[in-house]
Amino acid sequence: MNAVNTNSANVAERRLAPPSLAISTVIFALRPSETSGRPTLWLPLVRRIREPYKDMWALPGGPLAHDESLQDAASRNLRETTGLAPQYLEQLYAFGGLHRSPTQRVVSIVYWALVQPTEAALADESENVRWFRADRLGELAFDHNAIVEYALWRLRNKMAYGSIAYHLLGEFFTLAQVREVYEAVLDRQLDPANFRRQIKATPEIEETGEYLQGGKHRPPRLYRFTGTPGLGPDNRSTP
Amino acid sequence: MNAVNTNSANVAERRLAPPSLAISTVIFALRPSETSGRPTLWLPLVRRIREPYKDMWALPGGPLAHDESLQDAASRNLRETTGLAPQYLEQLYAFGGLHRSPTQRVVSIVYWALVQPTEAALADESENVRWFRADRLGELAFDHNAIVEYALWRLRNKMAYGSIAYHLLGEFFTLAQVREVYEAVLDRQLDPANFRRQIKATPEIEETGEYLQGGKHRPPRLYRFTGTPGLGPDNRSTP
Repeated sequence: MNAVNTNSANVAERRLAPPSLAISTVIFALRPSETSGRPTLWLPLVRRIREPYKDMWALPGGPLAHDESLQDAASRNLRETTGLAPQYLEQLYAFGGLHRSPTQRVVSIVYWALVQPTEAALADESENVRWFRADRLGELAFDHNAIVEYALWRLRNKMAYGSIAYHLLGEFFTLAQVREVYEAVLDRQLDPANFRRQIKATPEIEETGEYLQGGKHRPPRLYRFTGTPGLGPDNRSTP
Repeated sequence: MNAVNTNSANVAERRLAPPSLAISTVIFALRPSETSGRPTLWLPLVRRIREPYKDMWALPGGPLAHDESLQDAASRNLRETTGLAPQYLEQLYAFGGLHRSPTQRVVSIVYWALVQPTEAALADESENVRWFRADRLGELAFDHNAIVEYALWRLRNKMAYGSIAYHLLGEFFTLAQVREVYEAVLDRQLDPANFRRQIKATPEIEETGEYLQGGKHRPPRLYRFTGTPGLGPDNRSTP
């Protein structure tokens, strides 16, 4: 393609061109707070190296290639940004407002990934890729603050249905760790005894014979999640 | 645009072109079964008047115009197909498989609408727009059978969270009518006494002082739904 981007005839042409398509990915993981050490939600962002919004932070993403499925493009975002392979990766929403980008009409199909702490600890960081606390992002490029806000809202909603918390933990976890995930996502403290009672009543949470090693008190029991995740058609193996 | 579609150079060019974007809409309404008269799920389809899949039935939709939001395009689909304005219209999913269309790569962002029976009764039909029972569609164009199947699956899932049924009914309804919606969507009979007990325990279902007129028995009480619908960001008035 020969695109000369500097004259106004081309700007007008781009305005009338069909909307172009991009894939972006919101990648959540629990990491310790810098201050309290408690688990909090973090996500990696990429510094933009060209206009528009040059030097601002943005969600990882880019144009959809002609030979790449939506899910594959999102997996590639995840891999290129963090070096990780997706465990939980699901379509979030398509954002298609008229004024999302100052230079052309772009529709972004957004995926979200949940990454376990052991994986997140291995994730690459660099000059142009950095992890940020979800509640302290500053101003991002495009409408990406609104996209992250929507992803957080969906995450809080999904928590109510159970399985989602376990994608932020490893295979085995204590009930206190589950509570910490809920506290990080909901951003409020929960009563430990009530929470414990509720979680133990969830049929998908299974007691194991294992205990967490290394504390000074009676070691807490480890549990495991046995349900199935996700509502996207990709997780139902239809289209 | 000067598109000459008949030579193979152009076919190869289209294959390497960026994916194009379409909006399609699944529109569900309850209508009486032709045989039993019981409420069943129906949706309007449009006969294709050009290749590919000429003369086959397809979901209403088309390319996204450069000056139209995703939601506006879906509203237009609904209006052009049925003459109706949307009451409940929400983004369903973006379908972006590599081989959805034989001639070019198309990503379809699919919306779904729920239409009340009084509205559905007013909907236009014509030679090229016809309503079909959701469980008796035959073979549709593109991957539209899979899209409808996914929409049905999501509808069944959403039923579990309550509000969705009421978008298929009018403002006032009897508990038996609610049960009929559930039976139509879930495609199985439910125990009336159990169902009644469950629904009466739902805080968002409010008794009114009105009764259904015109039966020969004691007239059943009318209820009203007081909750809020929808999970899309459009329903949260963010992006």
